[in-house]
Amino acid sequence: MAVLHASGRPVTRRAVIAGVGATDFSVDSGRTEAVLAVQATLAALADANILPSSVDGLITFAADTTPEVVVQRNIGAQGLNYTGRSQYGGTDHCSTILQAKLAVEAGVASRVVCYRAFNERSGQRYGQGYGRGFGGTSAPNAETDLFAMTVPFGLLNAAGWVAMYAQRYMWLTGTTSRDLANVSVAARAHAATNPAARFYGRPITVDDHQASKLIVEPLRLFDCCLETDGGVAIVVTTEDIARNAGSDYVHIAGVASGSGVDQQMMATYSRDDSVMFDEIDRVARLVWERSGLEPDDIDVAILYDHFTPMVLAQLEAYGFCGRGEAKDFVADGNIHLGGKLPVNTHGGQIGEAYIHGMNGIAEGVRQTRGTAVNQIAGARTVLVSAPPGTPSSGLILTSAAT
Amino acid sequence: MAVLHASGRPVTRRAVIAGVGATDFSVDSGRTEAVLAVQATLAALADANILPSSVDGLITFAADTTPEVVVQRNIGAQGLNYTGRSQYGGTDHCSTILQAKLAVEAGVASRVVCYRAFNERSGQRYGQGYGRGFGGTSAPNAETDLFAMTVPFGLLNAAGWVAMYAQRYMWLTGTTSRDLANVSVAARAHAATNPAARFYGRPITVDDHQASKLIVEPLRLFDCCLETDGGVAIVVTTEDIARNAGSDYVHIAGVASGSGVDQQMMATYSRDDSVMFDEIDRVARLVWERSGLEPDDIDVAILYDHFTPMVLAQLEAYGFCGRGEAKDFVADGNIHLGGKLPVNTHGGQIGEAYIHGMNGIAEGVRQTRGTAVNQIAGARTVLVSAPPGTPSSGLILTSAAT
Repeated sequence: MAVLHASGRPVTRRAVIAGVGATDFSVDSGRTEAVLAVQATLAALADANILPSSVDGLITFAADTTPEVVVQRNIGAQGLNYTGRSQYGGTDHCSTILQAKLAVEAGVASRVVCYRAFNERSGQRYGQGYGRGFGGTSAPNAETDLFAMTVPFGLLNAAGWVAMYAQRYMWLTGTTSRDLANVSVAARAHAATNPAARFYGRPITVDDHQASKLIVEPLRLFDCCLETDGGVAIVVTTEDIARNAGSDYVHIAGVASGSGVDQQMMATYSRDDSVMFDEIDRVARLVWERSGLEPDDIDVAILYDHFTPMVLAQLEAYGFCGRGEAKDFVADGNIHLGGKLPVNTHGGQIGEAYIHGMNGIAEGVRQTRGTAVNQIAGARTVLVSAPPGTPSSGLILTSAAT
Repeated sequence: MAVLHASGRPVTRRAVIAGVGATDFSVDSGRTEAVLAVQATLAALADANILPSSVDGLITFAADTTPEVVVQRNIGAQGLNYTGRSQYGGTDHCSTILQAKLAVEAGVASRVVCYRAFNERSGQRYGQGYGRGFGGTSAPNAETDLFAMTVPFGLLNAAGWVAMYAQRYMWLTGTTSRDLANVSVAARAHAATNPAARFYGRPITVDDHQASKLIVEPLRLFDCCLETDGGVAIVVTTEDIARNAGSDYVHIAGVASGSGVDQQMMATYSRDDSVMFDEIDRVARLVWERSGLEPDDIDVAILYDHFTPMVLAQLEAYGFCGRGEAKDFVADGNIHLGGKLPVNTHGGQIGEAYIHGMNGIAEGVRQTRGTAVNQIAGARTVLVSAPPGTPSSGLILTSAAT
């Protein structure tokens, strides 16, 4: 028999997302990464109506420089029962939600914040490449060895690694740079009406995209995400706590994380087919299985757009169109506001900010709640996904409104 | 109704530890950290009778240099459904088991390996201090800022940080260096009969301890753990899989992880009482609560002994003796083989190897199975715990034999 509340409702430990928060997104935050992490965390907790002192779990990326206990002390939490890191954020960003869900549903922690904050534009820029070592590590190791295989050949950074896939994908499918432009134009259109976006009020055309400089062929400047200073945080708690707190919460219908056959870190070149992306197929299958949903159920998709070609890969892997057909799906206007499947309604990481996907989860929550700045009317089910090439992750959010 | 197996037994996803594995422990492994990680992982899987290709989860420390996907590829696993990191290993080492348990019991992964491997003696030595930066990080951040508060005052490494607590603890309780020696003598006695131990065949006396050089007052050389090259891995799976595989598995009766009030990273000096260790009290309470056990139930204790004074702290926090009484508990011979509470029967990190506590979990499994080299007759329940001062963790293992 289910345990009942005083209210007569069943007590449930089912995990929900109860709040989201963010700092401003800029090219120079003027403050430390720790301050950004704390500000985003406090904003998310305020949004959830949950007191900072009651937080008992904190989760971030392995690459984050602000330790969990620093956030703990600075928000006034008294102690933590769960801390954890995701190694593969960016693209494994949804695994922070997975970890939080597992901890909450097992009763290990009750109020968990997942955060990511960095001065990725004014501080260490990920796009600057790894010729001088990876992340400042001083001695060679299994992480840096991988780069030794690619850096000497000019594959210095993420743009280079992704360009390798993009070239072959485009050759196989007939996708052109103008097709990629369509992804960028949609993102910039959505950012243009989002005051929080770095590119607020600055839409572009396909011709603007075509005129932007080549970064690594076939990627132009406007195919690339925005190195950004900022932080985003997401609160995960039980449905019972969220309801009692009056949080505007959303359900986690399905969440998954995973790597695939012969997985490497952004340079998985040893497979028979360099655009065979086992990791995203695995994650997509798990997300659909766990949620019991299918592509037609999705009202809005937040697709990790570090580079435009990877948005096409996600449209295909999640079954919104057939293999090789994403260029047509995009060209038909489906991904715009008012289209069949609005994508990256906040402007994405190309138009709003690049916070390793966490700003996309926040947008997914807002769309599911019905409170996004570019709200899709009637949206109740949102997919947040990640690209292949690295370990990937995915998340489906559904409305708690009845 | 419970789902039944073909055998008629109920199918259970309860997580168990099915196997442990380790490399040799040395001062110079002669191989990379990745090779150590893979060798330890394969050894643990062989011990569990679980095929490497079936592994679908990998968990390690944030500080580990061997990414999960590198282990995945090199053991022949086809893909992963769970990866995660513990930020606070060493002392949060049991949280790797917690993460694995949550993933397994939720059905996210079925066969998870937790590993830690490093050339901590021939490569980057943690004991060398952080005057030139922490872990090679090139820019100041919230992790390194902390050290800026202590390094200028000569607190260059873990020995210095722990010495601060030790001095005050000893002053408050009347504990002397000879009392600390008793901890070291016991560890070395146990290591002396453990062929896998760095100090196999090399027991010491209290006088040897007293004659060893001062590292940071009050810590002498023999109060300190052994910087070591090596790797350890632990397999976590469901009881059902372990039983069907014929694994010699043990139960996870309780596992917890946590930080305390005003927690910092090894330099929590801002509390009203510098030996008030909220984090270990929190973890101890959780481990007792979750297991339903109490100190008298424990047959063997594996207490994280990076430095001898912290063994005393754990004896007190877990209730094996009263506050300030650990010196007497140890002096009475209780922690030796044949004593009331044999401690660190493998020799601990002072006598066997310092693998950030993971070799202690392996010893806990062996003692619970009844297969340790210094086996305590009839041992069925083993505590593995961690010190305060950093986020802490604890684990109770119980025998699956009926």
